[in-house]
Amino acid sequence: MDKEPTTATKQRMLDAGLTLLLEQGYHGVGVQAVLDAAQAPKGSFYHHFNDKEDFALQVVDAYMTGVHAALDASLSDSSRAPLDRIRGFFELVSQGYEHDGYLGCLLGGLGQELSGASDVFATKIDWCLGYIAGRLAEPLGEARARGDLTVAEDPAVLAQRLVECWEGAALHSRLLRDPSPLPAMLDFYFRAITRVPDDG
Amino acid sequence: MDKEPTTATKQRMLDAGLTLLLEQGYHGVGVQAVLDAAQAPKGSFYHHFNDKEDFALQVVDAYMTGVHAALDASLSDSSRAPLDRIRGFFELVSQGYEHDGYLGCLLGGLGQELSGASDVFATKIDWCLGYIAGRLAEPLGEARARGDLTVAEDPAVLAQRLVECWEGAALHSRLLRDPSPLPAMLDFYFRAITRVPDDG
Repeated sequence: MDKEPTTATKQRMLDAGLTLLLEQGYHGVGVQAVLDAAQAPKGSFYHHFNDKEDFALQVVDAYMTGVHAALDASLSDSSRAPLDRIRGFFELVSQGYEHDGYLGCLLGGLGQELSGASDVFATKIDWCLGYIAGRLAEPLGEARARGDLTVAEDPAVLAQRLVECWEGAALHSRLLRDPSPLPAMLDFYFRAITRVPDDG
Repeated sequence: MDKEPTTATKQRMLDAGLTLLLEQGYHGVGVQAVLDAAQAPKGSFYHHFNDKEDFALQVVDAYMTGVHAALDASLSDSSRAPLDRIRGFFELVSQGYEHDGYLGCLLGGLGQELSGASDVFATKIDWCLGYIAGRLAEPLGEARARGDLTVAEDPAVLAQRLVECWEGAALHSRLLRDPSPLPAMLDFYFRAITRVPDDG
């Protein structure tokens, strides 16, 4: 029997880590649970990771690889209006949540659990959410240039609010194990920045 | 020396629990840390609480006692317009966050950490956030009746969005250890529901 490449073992541990961290949180997950879920040989954890913190940070990186792919796929679609591209991004994110059973956002989960005690995680998660906001600021700026927005704020500021709104809706979705807050929040946000009320 | 009443010991453990749970999360806090922080005698933890889950649920209840007081104090102030009363509530909440060093919202923190694995906490935290939304729906309804709102949604729905928006901003505040996302989100939200754009 061929020996499995260690990169495949590592990837299985990262994949298992995403599910376990979403369900149980950082402190709820032990090394043995990762090995068991990944069917990885004993000893392989510390072959690939310095410690559990290093592991969780690499799970976040793996999660962000998926986020990058979703951003690239949705925001590059120039056949859609800029705000529709943003909606397309969050639709891809929502599909990920559905796949996980509506456990919310890993970034929000680890950010809440760990950022009180760990500057490493506070900085990491803030960077990740700030990166997403930075990417979303581009189509927001484009939307403004086209005259699609009815608010005057800087697109970078609007993008920060959008990510915060989404994280709050993702928490609610996690509590309910239900997607309903997610599109409701997008509707609220997009109307807030584009609405032209009735005259009156 | 008089023996301290056990209710005072219990209250000190609950007070210490709020700080510890905000900083370290549920799994990061052990019974001994609670006893140490509260300077409580060994054995008193299990005199007052069945287990750590019971303790954390009672910390949430104690937190909600403060929320109730803030809701009562701010929402009953009939000298202020309904939306100003809501802003007054979140100003009181923000003062609590400042006192804690901007560690965000205990409900969002425990909700994120625990609701993936614990239906007890998912249900409890969802109830708490839903209760706050229910209280905020009243002045939102009053604002609508006065003609202060420029959106048509049900006040109960608007209140849910408001609590979600706040929780997302509280996460960002926690990551940054800085209050700035909190008033920024309130400004965004209130403008979203009251804005009368320029004609055009």
